[in-house]
Amino acid sequence: MTDSRNAAIQYAHTQRGRFLQDLIELVRIPSISTTPENNGDMQRAAEWLADKLRGLGMQKVEVYPTTGHPIVYGELLAAGPNRATVLVYGHYDVQPPDPLEQWRQPPFEPTRQGENLYGRGASDMKGQLIATLSAIESVVRTGQSPLNYKIIIEGEEEVGSRTLHDFIQAHKDMLACDVMLNPDTEMIAADTPTIVYGLRGLAYFELHVHGPNHDLHSGLYGGVVHNPAQALCELIAAMHDDHGTVALPGFYDHVRPLRPEEHAEFARLPMNEDYYLEHTGVPGLWGEKDYLPSERIGIRPTLEVNGLLSGFTSVGQKTVIPAAAMAKISTRLVPDQTPEEIHQCMRRFLEEKAPKTIHWELIMLSGSKPSLSDINNDGVRALATALEAVWGTRPVFKREGGSVPVVVSVQEILGAPSVMTGFGLPDDNIHAPNEKLHLPTWERGMDALIHFFFNLGESKG
Amino acid sequence: MTDSRNAAIQYAHTQRGRFLQDLIELVRIPSISTTPENNGDMQRAAEWLADKLRGLGMQKVEVYPTTGHPIVYGELLAAGPNRATVLVYGHYDVQPPDPLEQWRQPPFEPTRQGENLYGRGASDMKGQLIATLSAIESVVRTGQSPLNYKIIIEGEEEVGSRTLHDFIQAHKDMLACDVMLNPDTEMIAADTPTIVYGLRGLAYFELHVHGPNHDLHSGLYGGVVHNPAQALCELIAAMHDDHGTVALPGFYDHVRPLRPEEHAEFARLPMNEDYYLEHTGVPGLWGEKDYLPSERIGIRPTLEVNGLLSGFTSVGQKTVIPAAAMAKISTRLVPDQTPEEIHQCMRRFLEEKAPKTIHWELIMLSGSKPSLSDINNDGVRALATALEAVWGTRPVFKREGGSVPVVVSVQEILGAPSVMTGFGLPDDNIHAPNEKLHLPTWERGMDALIHFFFNLGESKG
Repeated sequence: MTDSRNAAIQYAHTQRGRFLQDLIELVRIPSISTTPENNGDMQRAAEWLADKLRGLGMQKVEVYPTTGHPIVYGELLAAGPNRATVLVYGHYDVQPPDPLEQWRQPPFEPTRQGENLYGRGASDMKGQLIATLSAIESVVRTGQSPLNYKIIIEGEEEVGSRTLHDFIQAHKDMLACDVMLNPDTEMIAADTPTIVYGLRGLAYFELHVHGPNHDLHSGLYGGVVHNPAQALCELIAAMHDDHGTVALPGFYDHVRPLRPEEHAEFARLPMNEDYYLEHTGVPGLWGEKDYLPSERIGIRPTLEVNGLLSGFTSVGQKTVIPAAAMAKISTRLVPDQTPEEIHQCMRRFLEEKAPKTIHWELIMLSGSKPSLSDINNDGVRALATALEAVWGTRPVFKREGGSVPVVVSVQEILGAPSVMTGFGLPDDNIHAPNEKLHLPTWERGMDALIHFFFNLGESKG
Repeated sequence: MTDSRNAAIQYAHTQRGRFLQDLIELVRIPSISTTPENNGDMQRAAEWLADKLRGLGMQKVEVYPTTGHPIVYGELLAAGPNRATVLVYGHYDVQPPDPLEQWRQPPFEPTRQGENLYGRGASDMKGQLIATLSAIESVVRTGQSPLNYKIIIEGEEEVGSRTLHDFIQAHKDMLACDVMLNPDTEMIAADTPTIVYGLRGLAYFELHVHGPNHDLHSGLYGGVVHNPAQALCELIAAMHDDHGTVALPGFYDHVRPLRPEEHAEFARLPMNEDYYLEHTGVPGLWGEKDYLPSERIGIRPTLEVNGLLSGFTSVGQKTVIPAAAMAKISTRLVPDQTPEEIHQCMRRFLEEKAPKTIHWELIMLSGSKPSLSDINNDGVRALATALEAVWGTRPVFKREGGSVPVVVSVQEILGAPSVMTGFGLPDDNIHAPNEKLHLPTWERGMDALIHFFFNLGESKG
């Protein structure tokens, strides 16, 4: 099928301009899943994708309502039952663009500058989604497809994939597949194709501290009440010890120890201290000294403050003791931690440490389990060969710090392994102002995905 | 002058309805000094007061521009040089009304409910200001005035009286007086007239912590960078020890020790632990166990977090490591601490404690010295007799936790003592939502001020 393969890649090269226009259209829709005022945009993005799938000749295309944001599905099973079936996963929701004032152009007016396209979602993951759909188009428009496709695109990845697990459970026959392709991870550098075989889980909390029943004048009451903002800071400070280790009781109880061969793999990654200093701009790294930086992210659980709010925060001064203080706090989990177990660790910590001078309230907003894949399944091998064909170098295999709940659900419910890759770069500013996509890398990614589909088709065909 | 005194009090009683209308008009002007968008309202409030002074027959009435908000001045020297001159101080600015959603009615639409008038500034201190101007009107409209009046009303009390000191310096001859009346303090209870003879000073800071040069994805970087929100919490937590004592190096170096007779006075105040529990609603008191609650506020310096802001704080979740975090932190100072010395303590603390994994920036927004008055000056005696005449009980003398920079400036530049009182109550919610003024107490206050003017006039006449 070398001719078909070449024809598909040729097609992709001639259609790149149109594929980019598709991406720009999709990025223009502010599909922010966490803010209710964007619910209409979420629906619009879902419909846009359903139309796109229909345009590819897919069948059973539907925008499924859920208790949260809709899920888009479509399938193309023309290769027949003797061929492999890949389930392509994607998400159409994006992170909020805050802080808005730090963007150099409006986040939802995608702008090309040099080799990059700027806009919220350009890299995470509308770019990856359009690359995958464009690769499928290139294959199906130029010949007999080597495999069957099922596409599932959710709208709640950035808020913990709250409804996806139940959807997969309810549609397990429809979604049955040999392997899932999840193009939502990123490369470690533009010249280093990357396959991710492990992901961290997530448990996301809101912690509220309440003190006086209304804001107090700090002159008239300062000295006799425990300032809730201060009490919150004291609790947060106590969540780590001086070595950067999380101090919640029992937090590490189910963390798998690092095996020597894993350590050797991590040591080969180019992501050393200088790499992280350069990509973050911090004056010095932080964290568990006994682990490599890439290990701290890949195989160690962490706890992060994602937001703080209390009292008077405008320009100027207000001499107030705030009535309350709030923190958004999330933990990244590794095998074999579970979100519910970590929820209990956090609750136990607060029960032990919170002083009697304040009230506290803990809310778990979402949770997802960590995951680890076998790096010898058909999907991983097909992808490794595909990446090498385009980049001319063997991909690196890594465990990543992010969380993708669908990988756990697909393993548990459908019994299918996942293969994870993606063509975003570390300086893409995902989840941050001025998110961008490196277009030459994105185009190579399309070529690699075409190779992947042929490789995977041939592995079973 | 008993007849004049009675006539003045009679006049005040018949005019109460009109005085209340004056107050309502003034509270309607949202004269918030800290937010630049209210600058026009500040000017409007100043002009309103200048018109009011002119209406009282005052001379040299002027709205003086400053580098900040204007200062209003007027004088009435008809009693002649052999009579005492009182300098009446006031401020027309108010605190911001945030959090707005906690008000039961709009903060700048004053509403009477039962015996109270609700609105931002009703108690702090537009009510006190109108009470004083109404008392002056009652005296001057009903006979020969027993003393001379000078009125100075600033617009920056709630932001640290930034321009007032220089104004007093530049107009020291115009402002020369025997005593200053400052009606900006409050009563400890509706049946307990209160004279304040000591005030805490203030040093107000903004502390910024900077980490990565942009917000980071907490999955991809969590574990190797020091989260700025966490680092800020760690610094704030370290600003107190476990006993509620401020841990900035040198913070207590110049704090005068409590004398046994002062302790005895504090022990007589009705402001015990139950009082503060009731007025704040906290589950337990906090602070330096070796001192009475009233001592912790009156004679001990404190450090308060007034605001916290970092990262994502809207509804929902965002898995971000914020690039920066900010806290508003203020210290209340007692003799003989100075704001500049405390600024240095804070800076030294940060130099010693801030980790090398973040950058920090400290800005001092304002500072004012603490003050202590001699309780045997003519003004204090005249006021004590006046309060006793109306309430039928000797006033209590106390040192208060708030800060009034003008008292220090008037002592240092004009060499005049201050007498401080006021007719607000502890449950007035000043600096908080649903600020109110208790009108029967406010009306008694007017009567007491009329007595005060006569007493003070007679003391020198």
